[in-house]
Amino acid sequence: MCGLPPSVEMILAETRCYTERMSDLPAPYTQLRERLSEIHDLNKIGWVLNWDQRTMMAPGGAAVRAEQIATVNRIAHDKFTADEIGALLESLRDFEANQPVESDAAALIRRTRYDYQRERRVPGDLRVAMARAAALSNGAWVQARRTNDYAAFKPSLAETLDLKRAYADAVRDPGQSRYDALLDDYEHGITTTEVAEIFSSVRDGLADLITLVHEHADRVDDGALKGDFPADQQATLCRSVLEPLGFNARAWRLDPTVHPFASNASTQDIRITTRYEPHTLGPAFFGSLHEFGHGLYEHQVDPALERTPLCRGTSLGWHESQSRMWENLVGRSRGFIHWIHPRLKRVFRKHFTRYDAEALYRAANRVQPSLIRIEADEVTYTLHIVIRFELEQELVAGTLSLDDLPAAWNDRMRRYLGVDVPSDSQGVLQDVHWSSGYFGYFPTYSLGSILASQLWVAIQRDVPDVEQRIGRGDFAPLRAWLGEHIHKHGRKFTPRELLQLTLGVDRIDVAPYLSYLHTKFGELYA
Amino acid sequence: MCGLPPSVEMILAETRCYTERMSDLPAPYTQLRERLSEIHDLNKIGWVLNWDQRTMMAPGGAAVRAEQIATVNRIAHDKFTADEIGALLESLRDFEANQPVESDAAALIRRTRYDYQRERRVPGDLRVAMARAAALSNGAWVQARRTNDYAAFKPSLAETLDLKRAYADAVRDPGQSRYDALLDDYEHGITTTEVAEIFSSVRDGLADLITLVHEHADRVDDGALKGDFPADQQATLCRSVLEPLGFNARAWRLDPTVHPFASNASTQDIRITTRYEPHTLGPAFFGSLHEFGHGLYEHQVDPALERTPLCRGTSLGWHESQSRMWENLVGRSRGFIHWIHPRLKRVFRKHFTRYDAEALYRAANRVQPSLIRIEADEVTYTLHIVIRFELEQELVAGTLSLDDLPAAWNDRMRRYLGVDVPSDSQGVLQDVHWSSGYFGYFPTYSLGSILASQLWVAIQRDVPDVEQRIGRGDFAPLRAWLGEHIHKHGRKFTPRELLQLTLGVDRIDVAPYLSYLHTKFGELYA
Repeated sequence: MCGLPPSVEMILAETRCYTERMSDLPAPYTQLRERLSEIHDLNKIGWVLNWDQRTMMAPGGAAVRAEQIATVNRIAHDKFTADEIGALLESLRDFEANQPVESDAAALIRRTRYDYQRERRVPGDLRVAMARAAALSNGAWVQARRTNDYAAFKPSLAETLDLKRAYADAVRDPGQSRYDALLDDYEHGITTTEVAEIFSSVRDGLADLITLVHEHADRVDDGALKGDFPADQQATLCRSVLEPLGFNARAWRLDPTVHPFASNASTQDIRITTRYEPHTLGPAFFGSLHEFGHGLYEHQVDPALERTPLCRGTSLGWHESQSRMWENLVGRSRGFIHWIHPRLKRVFRKHFTRYDAEALYRAANRVQPSLIRIEADEVTYTLHIVIRFELEQELVAGTLSLDDLPAAWNDRMRRYLGVDVPSDSQGVLQDVHWSSGYFGYFPTYSLGSILASQLWVAIQRDVPDVEQRIGRGDFAPLRAWLGEHIHKHGRKFTPRELLQLTLGVDRIDVAPYLSYLHTKFGELYA
Repeated sequence: MCGLPPSVEMILAETRCYTERMSDLPAPYTQLRERLSEIHDLNKIGWVLNWDQRTMMAPGGAAVRAEQIATVNRIAHDKFTADEIGALLESLRDFEANQPVESDAAALIRRTRYDYQRERRVPGDLRVAMARAAALSNGAWVQARRTNDYAAFKPSLAETLDLKRAYADAVRDPGQSRYDALLDDYEHGITTTEVAEIFSSVRDGLADLITLVHEHADRVDDGALKGDFPADQQATLCRSVLEPLGFNARAWRLDPTVHPFASNASTQDIRITTRYEPHTLGPAFFGSLHEFGHGLYEHQVDPALERTPLCRGTSLGWHESQSRMWENLVGRSRGFIHWIHPRLKRVFRKHFTRYDAEALYRAANRVQPSLIRIEADEVTYTLHIVIRFELEQELVAGTLSLDDLPAAWNDRMRRYLGVDVPSDSQGVLQDVHWSSGYFGYFPTYSLGSILASQLWVAIQRDVPDVEQRIGRGDFAPLRAWLGEHIHKHGRKFTPRELLQLTLGVDRIDVAPYLSYLHTKFGELYA
């Protein structure tokens, strides 16, 4: 109709621009790669449909859109778990053994074999039941949070949890615990024990800092981030900040949304979103730096991996290390704030004449134990995560009942953070994750923060003047380092392999993170 | 990453909100419908991806997007031409015979059987070759139009034309001409002879009117549509005009684009686009009325047909009858213009104080033979179509060579429209259609205009005060009539069946169209 059917643009089918054409590759490898490209296309299309739904779609489209997304997911799943994929993987064992372990081909076969074996363990009926329960439970959660009615949410949460236990039983290796199996979906290869040790070190290491902050809470205020900030001016501001970092209209979009997220359709089609609150600048400003970090990871994956399942970040923890690096280590650093202040002043002249760069730096780093995880500061954030990590282990193990969950939540909030929870909506009902069946997801947020500091030590070693460069608005060396050491690899290596490759170590180390927090907040609150 | 994977929202999979659950339907019917819903989802996803590409996508995403669209198209095609579809259709013959012919079930089987048989006649290799040729030819056309280089375009046009001939040979029924077979893709059931008769009557019937207009060309000027109109104010204006017509944010979007089009993801997710030119109001104003007409057709399809191949307009001609009705019979009518003038004045006060409603009415209806089809007025538009209709018949039959095409074009432009073509870019290279292989598409534009007038007679009979209502900004009765008589049926009936059902006639009649043009333009140019 007027614009003609989309078939023409649709049909660059045969160009196959990103498919390897190397003639020395065996036919089964080419066939595997073609199948995986098709599946990857479907997965990426799911992301585009999701992005569209959350940023563009008229609300009336929701019901059919759910079906459309389910359709691409179902087809992708069916195609991936097909016997033919397994047969191709088997026939490629000799080829794989003769390829360098770091080659794209070996990595593609290796990672696909793992994914395939894991996915084949999940009975089709269980997958369907989980999807249905998550959808229902998610709807119930939205309603329950609005009406502060945990009891109404509990039955569907119980079903989601039961199914997630069954899922863990289906996928876990012999001897692997359920919770380890769930963690593995989000941070492949890490164990509950390892996470517990890390979090325990963080809690112990921050105890005195939290006491210090508590005693000198009045030393830092956030006035510089409060005021009247119209959404369209915030949008202009975010763009003017992101562009020097690497955001450009050729390959990026920034759109408003209710719940910010990063998404992409390919390495050259990166979509980040943010939320403009009229009286505070923090959410949009630091939020868009955060999502930029996610976007840059996907943008800098080696183009040779495009349209393969290796074309994405290796894990949620590694992804979060990138978003938090840009949000916190860069965005909340003194150098960056001093560089950015004149740009803020160009948009909000009066406000940032009143508040100078140092006032902004202090506001950006105010510590304040709070009820809500997503509003937490750098120092207390991990405590929110620890609470969820402990509770979900107990829920999965069955040692904590859903009846007792709200009380357990409130008790830990009081003990760990010193805050009283006035309602379940601001307590146990605040996060979407459990309703969606994402048990084991939360730890990756804090692991990302910790890893970011560990990476920062290596960056400072390789680019000694990185912080001075940031203070001059020169982000190229940092971007290049991240691209070369992390991003370009996509998902070729497991999180632990990438740790070895990038830092030469086997484990996440909390020392740089603790040192960073002590230095920064010790100075601010001393 | 922050926003969580899209799986939750994706997975309302099992709600199947629009799938019939009637237990008295035989299993093969339910199976057929489920398969068709999946295929329909994929087709609609192709449209969403196309809409996104043309309105939202960063340009860097183009290469991978082409692959993604090709992937959903290929899967949809494979699933539709699968033997299982044929077997289900066969097994449903008795069931179909026992259903009322106007029932959804009978229509779904009947229309699907036709589509299936036709699509199965196309060899897979030919489909691939056509897709590749169209993509290449389309690229060559863009380049050739820019550089005014027909010779450079000719080889790829030749290949596209050859393949289209082969396609026509593959799909045509015994005794059916190639061009009839091509027409059928866009206006099922119409013949070349019938179109030729219609166009001949229009040409003959308009000859004296064109002479009249030519002699009194200076009686009407378009000053009321020329001025300074910033894009954002035009957007505000378009919205304020479309809303009383039926556009609402719950189910519609309006976005800017280079080449305007209407698209949709479902009946409750209608997306129209328009183009804002800084110094003339016509393209955005009348263009958005036009696209609204397309959108309303899809919006008012019976929700029971959602997620089936019946959920769309029955043909391009019928679609165009709706867009042109809203653009011309409504939008360029005196009543509408007088109603809309105060609204225009609210946005562009100074301009529309200078130009009153009557000046705007005259500007909106200025007749001016021109080089470019998409800029043509109501009186001369069909002459542009006749030229293309004649030339493409000769090209498909092989009686006109591509070497002689530009001269033949220019000759007919002089004879039919009295204009000299200064360059191929403004002549034979102006339209995208042939490069994409859309031979047989053009006639539907004019058939739509003619049909709109024929429908208008019936509307006036059933809603005698429809024009007075429009003059008061009351579009509800018109919308309801169109919904009840045309839109709700979607694609259940063929174009000719719908003509019978709606108007009780078997053929398109040019008399109301000629009468409308003579009355309106006779008065303006007398």
